[in-house]
Amino acid sequence: MNQTIDTSRLQRGRAALAAIDGEAGEKVVAALADIAPDFATYLLEFPFGDIYSRPGLNLREREIATIAALAAMGNATPQLKVHIAAGLNVGLARAEIVEILMQMAVYAGFPAALNGLFAAKEVFGAREEEA
Amino acid sequence: MNQTIDTSRLQRGRAALAAIDGEAGEKVVAALADIAPDFATYLLEFPFGDIYSRPGLNLREREIATIAALAAMGNATPQLKVHIAAGLNVGLARAEIVEILMQMAVYAGFPAALNGLFAAKEVFGAREEEA
Amino acid sequence: MNQTIDTSRLQRGRAALAAIDGEAGEKVVAALADIAPDFATYLLEFPFGDIYSRPGLNLREREIATIAALAAMGNATPQLKVHIAAGLNVGLARAEIVEILMQMAVYAGFPAALNGLFAAKEVFGAREEEA
Amino acid sequence: MNQTIDTSRLQRGRAALAAIDGEAGEKVVAALADIAPDFATYLLEFPFGDIYSRPGLNLREREIATIAALAAMGNATPQLKVHIAAGLNVGLARAEIVEILMQMAVYAGFPAALNGLFAAKEVFGAREEEA
Amino acid sequence: MNQTIDTSRLQRGRAALAAIDGEAGEKVVAALADIAPDFATYLLEFPFGDIYSRPGLNLREREIATIAALAAMGNATPQLKVHIAAGLNVGLARAEIVEILMQMAVYAGFPAALNGLFAAKEVFGAREEEA
Amino acid sequence: MNQTIDTSRLQRGRAALAAIDGEAGEKVVAALADIAPDFATYLLEFPFGDIYSRPGLNLREREIATIAALAAMGNATPQLKVHIAAGLNVGLARAEIVEILMQMAVYAGFPAALNGLFAAKEVFGAREEEA
Repeated sequence: MNQTIDTSRLQRGRAALAAIDGEAGEKVVAALADIAPDFATYLLEFPFGDIYSRPGLNLREREIATIAALAAMGNATPQLKVHIAAGLNVGLARAEIVEILMQMAVYAGFPAALNGLFAAKEVFGAREEEA
Repeated sequence: MNQTIDTSRLQRGRAALAAIDGEAGEKVVAALADIAPDFATYLLEFPFGDIYSRPGLNLREREIATIAALAAMGNATPQLKVHIAAGLNVGLARAEIVEILMQMAVYAGFPAALNGLFAAKEVFGAREEEA
Repeated sequence: MNQTIDTSRLQRGRAALAAIDGEAGEKVVAALADIAPDFATYLLEFPFGDIYSRPGLNLREREIATIAALAAMGNATPQLKVHIAAGLNVGLARAEIVEILMQMAVYAGFPAALNGLFAAKEVFGAREEEA
Repeated sequence: MNQTIDTSRLQRGRAALAAIDGEAGEKVVAALADIAPDFATYLLEFPFGDIYSRPGLNLREREIATIAALAAMGNATPQLKVHIAAGLNVGLARAEIVEILMQMAVYAGFPAALNGLFAAKEVFGAREEEA
Repeated sequence: MNQTIDTSRLQRGRAALAAIDGEAGEKVVAALADIAPDFATYLLEFPFGDIYSRPGLNLREREIATIAALAAMGNATPQLKVHIAAGLNVGLARAEIVEILMQMAVYAGFPAALNGLFAAKEVFGAREEEA
Repeated sequence: MNQTIDTSRLQRGRAALAAIDGEAGEKVVAALADIAPDFATYLLEFPFGDIYSRPGLNLREREIATIAALAAMGNATPQLKVHIAAGLNVGLARAEIVEILMQMAVYAGFPAALNGLFAAKEVFGAREEEA
């Protein structure tokens, strides 16, 4: 592929991914290396280099939006877990994440909220084991 | 139906609905009167009397979550519009709502973000006409 | 296309469609005539000739399932309206259809239930005008 | 939290949960105890204390609706399994549950029906082991 | 915003959008100008400048994938119509688009296929009026 | 059940299933034998005997559509894996399948694309072990 790469977007994305998703984000990028390395680049560039690097909402607010969306959609559990952890990384309290997930019962039904809460339970539990 | 009604939940819900959704919320309640009046009660009680009345997240944060979820699900445009207006009611700036909707391109795809942005455009436009 | 047609399935489907969806079903079949006539055949054969013609559940029970599913999915309003009318055709009371739709708030969220109830309101209203 | 609790709703919900979901429902409530105990209360109160306790549809009909909706949505397998078991608890025959799931091929596609049928196979198999 | 813009991506995206979506794509970009101009840039850059500009699949094949996905998701009718027109622009025959949409009955259910076919009917009809 | 069976549809379906899905498809049919044998017949007849046996699109094109749809829906991972394998069976290159999945980031979001790519990684890996 002969596409110009905008290094600054990629670097900004890499920094944002590290700050937000931490190790979990780097694992996703590594897992793409043998099957779709260009997609790892897009993932760093667009979501992290473009969107999460924008002013206008802080990272705590952006993670509220992401956790809500992924829990409501209910078909992206691995990414929901990454972003529950990311929420903790950028300053959301566990109790705040629980509030967001409970609220999803209203918009996406009780199963979506329950599955979100159990995903959070797993992420919170894993953090305690690490500590 | 012989179910006990918890007046305080209902009253708390009615107050929360008025504060958050304003006239649009009351129209929904009114529209239910002839087909499913009990459902209007549930709507006031559970989402508004229980969930939105909880401490733990402020209303601005709760609307970030709701707008994100409804835009990501992409199949509830009337409710998305009500909550874009609700977001404005509880202190979100137009530019902040636009940020939330753009971010949904990452999690639910560009069509979800585009349809959310065009819903916002309609809500913002209607506000200007009222003014 | 040189595929053998199983006349009995098609005939059975045509009869089931007429009994369940009535005129609304025939309009769908007619609307497919110029763009995808083979799809009208499939629609008569598989959903109506095969599935709705099976014993094991009566048509009233099958429409409970269909109305619930379409309301929960929330992205097929025209078909939801056809099946709310079909529910009335096969013996569901209006109040029963309202119960099914309200219950969807639990599994698919309040917007899905609300949009289902407003679809029912439209179908019930149209019936009254006809009468 | 200083919200008034309507004991009768909670009690009614607890009884309905026990009658419908049996042990599986109690496990869900127990699993919420350390992460979101208020959500366990809401789950007992709204879906079970309010909705499933309503007259208008019997529990067998309500489970037809729930199994159909969860199979069609396709993103809530744990809840689908709980409600396939609940269907058996409230009087649906295995063959009737299989009919509901097959019918979902029409509305949500063959993968949704297949995944529902394989969930049923697991639930039916577990019942036999218990027996 | 002080982000570096990679002109070549943007130019490549603008050319791809024009070639694929034609006037309909330009209308979307124009409609974003007053509410989210940065999002118009992202739309040109990532989907069109990055993804559609990749070798590996030709545009005809890419539109098969897009039409299938949008019809199956069933919640993005405006974008489905744009891409049915785009499919014609890049060499898909009407009959081929109809085949793709009929096939979606298998994976996303008959309502998704029907709504896709009726969207196609509208797009094909509009083309004839223009001619 | 006393429904006429159209042997030619069933035979045509069986041949198409074998050619497209190979052993994985036969395993699905076998797994249905004890719970819903009629559904195995429908699966062979409608998707494979009717749809995949149609002229108008070749199997390579049909699998582009199916892989795109299943990845975009994001709630049918077992079927997505079967059809990634089917794509290889009917002539799609691994790199082409990766392109389709990456493109889904635009329409269904990055999580859908990521989960599709990781499903492909698993299928590709299993093929190598077999070799």
